[in-house]
Amino acid sequence: MQTIKAAAIQMSYKGSKEAMLKATSQKIKEATQKGAQLVVLQELHQSEYFCQSEDTKFFDYAKDFQKDVAFWANISKEFDIVLVASLFEQRAPGLYHNSAVVFDKGKIAGKYRKMHIPDDPGFYEKFYFTPGDLGFEPISTSIGVLGVLVCWDQWFPEAARIMALKGADILIYPTAIGWFDSDKEDEKQRQLEAWITIQRAHAIANGLPLISCNRCGFEKDSSGVLEGIRFWGNSFICGPQGEFLVRAGVEEEILIAEIDFSKSKAVRDIWPFMRDRRVEYYHCLNKIFCDD
Amino acid sequence: MQTIKAAAIQMSYKGSKEAMLKATSQKIKEATQKGAQLVVLQELHQSEYFCQSEDTKFFDYAKDFQKDVAFWANISKEFDIVLVASLFEQRAPGLYHNSAVVFDKGKIAGKYRKMHIPDDPGFYEKFYFTPGDLGFEPISTSIGVLGVLVCWDQWFPEAARIMALKGADILIYPTAIGWFDSDKEDEKQRQLEAWITIQRAHAIANGLPLISCNRCGFEKDSSGVLEGIRFWGNSFICGPQGEFLVRAGVEEEILIAEIDFSKSKAVRDIWPFMRDRRVEYYHCLNKIFCDD
Repeated sequence: MQTIKAAAIQMSYKGSKEAMLKATSQKIKEATQKGAQLVVLQELHQSEYFCQSEDTKFFDYAKDFQKDVAFWANISKEFDIVLVASLFEQRAPGLYHNSAVVFDKGKIAGKYRKMHIPDDPGFYEKFYFTPGDLGFEPISTSIGVLGVLVCWDQWFPEAARIMALKGADILIYPTAIGWFDSDKEDEKQRQLEAWITIQRAHAIANGLPLISCNRCGFEKDSSGVLEGIRFWGNSFICGPQGEFLVRAGVEEEILIAEIDFSKSKAVRDIWPFMRDRRVEYYHCLNKIFCDD
Repeated sequence: MQTIKAAAIQMSYKGSKEAMLKATSQKIKEATQKGAQLVVLQELHQSEYFCQSEDTKFFDYAKDFQKDVAFWANISKEFDIVLVASLFEQRAPGLYHNSAVVFDKGKIAGKYRKMHIPDDPGFYEKFYFTPGDLGFEPISTSIGVLGVLVCWDQWFPEAARIMALKGADILIYPTAIGWFDSDKEDEKQRQLEAWITIQRAHAIANGLPLISCNRCGFEKDSSGVLEGIRFWGNSFICGPQGEFLVRAGVEEEILIAEIDFSKSKAVRDIWPFMRDRRVEYYHCLNKIFCDD
């Protein structure tokens, strides 16, 4: 498909899974009423961002993964869309992934398991998620080939590049990132700008459009160790030169943009980075550090 | 060294090599009077950007490479600085490189040969330069380990990443990029923003400060095929979160900023991207495209 209408649904947490399913479904309906053919949801959109603390009780959130998959498959069928959902996957007892599942009008088009897992105060993901073992594989759908990555992946140019080299038409990041109120204003701005800048750069480096869908709103740290995270929203959709097509603020918003896939070829033809990579000198990228 | 004062000298072409050597030396003097310990010059700063057309006469510009090296070595000694020069290197008759040479108070600290070579209308570099065969090797100096890359390299996250993985303290890009007056204003803005964004992203992804030194001013296409290039200046120095420390406009300017190398560790410790790379899944990066 040459041109599609894509939506990113930026939401705050509503207090329960039931409330989230209901509110999210309603927003998907609104997006499709505005013509969206592809809808991207934020990271772990069925629940609060529970990784603020390490508590085994939260593993319960993953136990209905198969039911969750069926639920979102059904939503994608009902609204006749391609849907990128971000779900907590119980693969086996005691083995969990932070997974994105892509649905195509009722069918499962593919699954991505978050490859790069963060772990820092307030984001204790290494406790919950085994790093993905499916690699970086784009997912084919009726509206294009989706390079779906998740949150922390967005800081790694390697992930975006591999998706592009494997034929992705677009890069997609469900994400959950925000500020601590205790941080200074200038530090907050540096963090937000860095987050936007590096993702736009993935679009630029690879000549691909990109959708980043983040949470918004404040979520308390239930463990009381930290105060909580103020998710900074700022979801955006940009074109293959990194140019903003649409950009959210810090509140709830349904972002919608028309994405013209033919622009990628046009941009790559005038900026032929793909032509000139010096792959014979890139071995070092396959090492953690090159100090030997 | 923990903190250094660095300068990027953004200049327009003055009509002859002689005039360029004189003007550049004068500006280096000014920079050092303001305390600069590291000075970065723009790409191919001894001449006009001759790659606007393909003409064998321009190979003459490379014939005095050894003398040029001696000249800039001497300048670096005179002003007691680390100097990044960008020179047209004749390696053998008929074999040329676009090389950056780093001088450390009179001595040659190291050389980088531009690895990624562009070729598009107005930038016919594949005619002039053999792609570098030295790989991506940071250069050790008395003020730090420099990850020197050149212009087109700036579009490749791989190049910056490898420099970081090999221990660079800073990324440095002498460059020559500009607009064609025939382009529309919105396209010009997209190009400039993309160029700034992707370089800031290299700083962010690798937790390193970065210096980008570009030309400014208009240079006519002597072949008459195109009108010429309006080099867009906008040189900048940013910190390891991609935050601007100083940024030029489109006119001549000596940019000076204090760079605190200790910030890199601080930033990497809170944003530990280095910790989490999934190198066992990065093989695809060593291929031109992953379609098999």
